[in-house]
Amino acid sequence: MSEPFASPASAREQEEGETFRPRFDAAGLVTAVVTDHETGRPMMVAHMNAEALDLTLETGIAHYWSRSRGCLWKKGETSGALQSVRDIHVDCDQDAVWLSVVSAKPEDTCHTGRKSCFYRRLDSDSRKLVAAHS
Amino acid sequence: MSEPFASPASAREQEEGETFRPRFDAAGLVTAVVTDHETGRPMMVAHMNAEALDLTLETGIAHYWSRSRGCLWKKGETSGALQSVRDIHVDCDQDAVWLSVVSAKPEDTCHTGRKSCFYRRLDSDSRKLVAAHS
Repeated sequence: MSEPFASPASAREQEEGETFRPRFDAAGLVTAVVTDHETGRPMMVAHMNAEALDLTLETGIAHYWSRSRGCLWKKGETSGALQSVRDIHVDCDQDAVWLSVVSAKPEDTCHTGRKSCFYRRLDSDSRKLVAAHS
Repeated sequence: MSEPFASPASAREQEEGETFRPRFDAAGLVTAVVTDHETGRPMMVAHMNAEALDLTLETGIAHYWSRSRGCLWKKGETSGALQSVRDIHVDCDQDAVWLSVVSAKPEDTCHTGRKSCFYRRLDSDSRKLVAAHS
């Protein structure tokens, strides 16, 4: 695959330019924060390589790179919890993207069978995990 | 500093246990998604090592690890944009945390002088960056 994105440039260009120049890390990935388009709540954190990002833009369906399996990951291909991307935002230095999505099967967003991977709150005092308010 | 957190364990324990077992990556970091406690909008993505996480829990003020500078980073120590942490959520495998914060100086959240690092939207068709609705 030919490189579908422009290369990172100066700090000023990364921060103020209108060209999308994703800054992939040494492993070829950017961080993706995924939120629920209706509630705004974080659903998951994932990673994207150039191919996943390109496919996401091309199809409107979120694709990621699975670090654990080492392969392209069309989220929901098996579970049905496909994510339609409504908005993508990019951070200042372009090493992170924020996807606002609508899930076709919200209850299978997390592989544990929950609407979000962030289903536990950390109690600062006890440092124990407790169920989060949904 | 002695290790302040329990070590990662089995997938089931990571996902369902009540013990906080942050899964630091090879660089000793977890990903931190930071949202505005009032609006719920993502403000930034950062990273935390064990010390930053421990100090955050201890003080209630967000501390990170600056990958670019290679040092502990008390966000806002220079700019005044200190972040009071209202809630911390942890994801299923405990390699990402979500901090909901109140900034003491919202307009200096991003070093570019904006309330969020996600001040640009990516237009899927043109693949150009445009100003985000605030």
